[in-house]
Amino acid sequence: MSDFKSIGEFGFINQIDTHPTPNRVLCGIGDDCAVVAHSGNQVRLITTDMMVEGVHFFTDTPPEGLGHKLLAVNISDIAAMGGIPTDAVISLAVPAHHDAGYLERLYNGLYACADRFDIAIVGGDTTRSHNQLVLNIALTGHMHRDHVCYRSGAQIGDLIYVSGTLGDSAGGLALVRHQIKMNSEDRTHLLRKFHRPDPQLALGQTLAQTGAVTAMMDISDGVASDLRHICKRSQVSALLHASDLPLSEPFLRFCKKTKQDTTQLALSGGEDYELLFTVTPNRAKNIAHLLQKSDLPQITCIGQITDQDNDILLTQKDGSKTPLTAMGYDHFKTPGEE
Amino acid sequence: MSDFKSIGEFGFINQIDTHPTPNRVLCGIGDDCAVVAHSGNQVRLITTDMMVEGVHFFTDTPPEGLGHKLLAVNISDIAAMGGIPTDAVISLAVPAHHDAGYLERLYNGLYACADRFDIAIVGGDTTRSHNQLVLNIALTGHMHRDHVCYRSGAQIGDLIYVSGTLGDSAGGLALVRHQIKMNSEDRTHLLRKFHRPDPQLALGQTLAQTGAVTAMMDISDGVASDLRHICKRSQVSALLHASDLPLSEPFLRFCKKTKQDTTQLALSGGEDYELLFTVTPNRAKNIAHLLQKSDLPQITCIGQITDQDNDILLTQKDGSKTPLTAMGYDHFKTPGEE
Repeated sequence: MSDFKSIGEFGFINQIDTHPTPNRVLCGIGDDCAVVAHSGNQVRLITTDMMVEGVHFFTDTPPEGLGHKLLAVNISDIAAMGGIPTDAVISLAVPAHHDAGYLERLYNGLYACADRFDIAIVGGDTTRSHNQLVLNIALTGHMHRDHVCYRSGAQIGDLIYVSGTLGDSAGGLALVRHQIKMNSEDRTHLLRKFHRPDPQLALGQTLAQTGAVTAMMDISDGVASDLRHICKRSQVSALLHASDLPLSEPFLRFCKKTKQDTTQLALSGGEDYELLFTVTPNRAKNIAHLLQKSDLPQITCIGQITDQDNDILLTQKDGSKTPLTAMGYDHFKTPGEE
Repeated sequence: MSDFKSIGEFGFINQIDTHPTPNRVLCGIGDDCAVVAHSGNQVRLITTDMMVEGVHFFTDTPPEGLGHKLLAVNISDIAAMGGIPTDAVISLAVPAHHDAGYLERLYNGLYACADRFDIAIVGGDTTRSHNQLVLNIALTGHMHRDHVCYRSGAQIGDLIYVSGTLGDSAGGLALVRHQIKMNSEDRTHLLRKFHRPDPQLALGQTLAQTGAVTAMMDISDGVASDLRHICKRSQVSALLHASDLPLSEPFLRFCKKTKQDTTQLALSGGEDYELLFTVTPNRAKNIAHLLQKSDLPQITCIGQITDQDNDILLTQKDGSKTPLTAMGYDHFKTPGEE
């Protein structure tokens, strides 16, 4: 008899991923969203997330931010395919003694995010829980079949990009957990990235429509862990450049203050909800040009896709190349911070 | 400050139901499924359910049955609109020490039910929980816009029908909870209705296509409670006949054995997952005729829709009419058996 901790989240997913699905399911378990063929050239997207009190949030988590984040991280999954989110259903399991005002504020955060991205909260389920507050969301969307950006399309030679900056959310989490003195502006920046991540929806849609993006996913567990998913599904490997990682000033000051290695935290810190994607080399200029003329967030090239036989390598600032240690986060195997 | 228990599940739902939704949402919170306009004459259906260990099931609940039930009760929601279920996503929050074999058996039950109704499990989320196992499903479907059976269409004079028999699941629950001696055949019948309810999908679809059904829902909290939803949303009331309630032989023997009032248990017992619907009187004969020639389950007329000013009345077997006491189940206000 094996327990859940010993096989891990991904071990369990692999176990259940063997069941056959109908032909209409273009992509089931294993990408940011499920993709199901629909009428004409349209596909339907579905994604879901569960958040548990004491694991993903705590009794003192501001409820408006929690409501925002529950929806935002699922919008981020739709963004990672390049799709358009439409409708969501929310489930709550609530301890009977729970303050109803807290839930009202949670819904305020949820609705504010939904309105901003033109998403309808169309229903849900509310039930009792003994101890923990548990939240679940399922979000649907749609898009053109030919524009879907799976994790599996990266080719040798493709350039690897990320949007925004890395590690800010990990800094914000540390500020929530530990007594760390920082100036108010830096603190606000890092906490905002942790509590209220902005899904890169417009960027994801724009990138998908160029046809130049070969693979895309959102960064939820950290680049180190998430890039492995792209490499595994695309049967390739990668070379990253430590000196090219986009890092914010508040993050750099946070790392200095807490004496942490910036590269390690930027690559292993979870919940950035930025986009990680690969681009055909001869199309990279077009994309850079397209984005320069828009209000979309910056993107940064951080490496290149290489032959499958290699491990993922990291070129350090001193020029040495070292295999990237698995620094990602598995809820069961690494019951550490998140 | 009010807690969740004091405002109740329905109080909370009413509170969040005031947020405006886009025009494409034909029906949001308040029916068996959300209904969203789609291309042409098609609408999309979405429903979701959360099940919590210690509330909806227990550590000794057979996992195959639990997997079946998680999906079946959501298929029942789609059946209650008359729709076709297509794709589901499943979320799990699992205590780290939990036996992985239990979850594999749960998925076996889930997949067996999915395959039977041609539903694809297209993805999900797996995460940690501290204490309780928590399951969530979101199920999507579709149907013709003109055939959707809402709860809100019942008219004065319409006949009220239910499918199958009532109260069997409540009997099954009592057998699980208490030491009650019954013969093996009766025990099997009642336990099966509790552990493995059969969603009335084909019946719901057939009824919806007749165009004669004015309102429909599935029986999850018991007829007494569920009929109130139809009456409230349709702004009507109802008269029920105790002697017309369809009751199985095992249920009658169970009530005799446990000295319970058959009418009360049949109307208040939850989780029947049969269909409750209203029919235009001059179309009732057509429907009866249609069903006689099919393999679909029996349906029984149990009463008639009346003017809104009345409470729901029950004609007892002695001919007396008494207002039906609210005997339904609200997870928060009645933390009793379920």
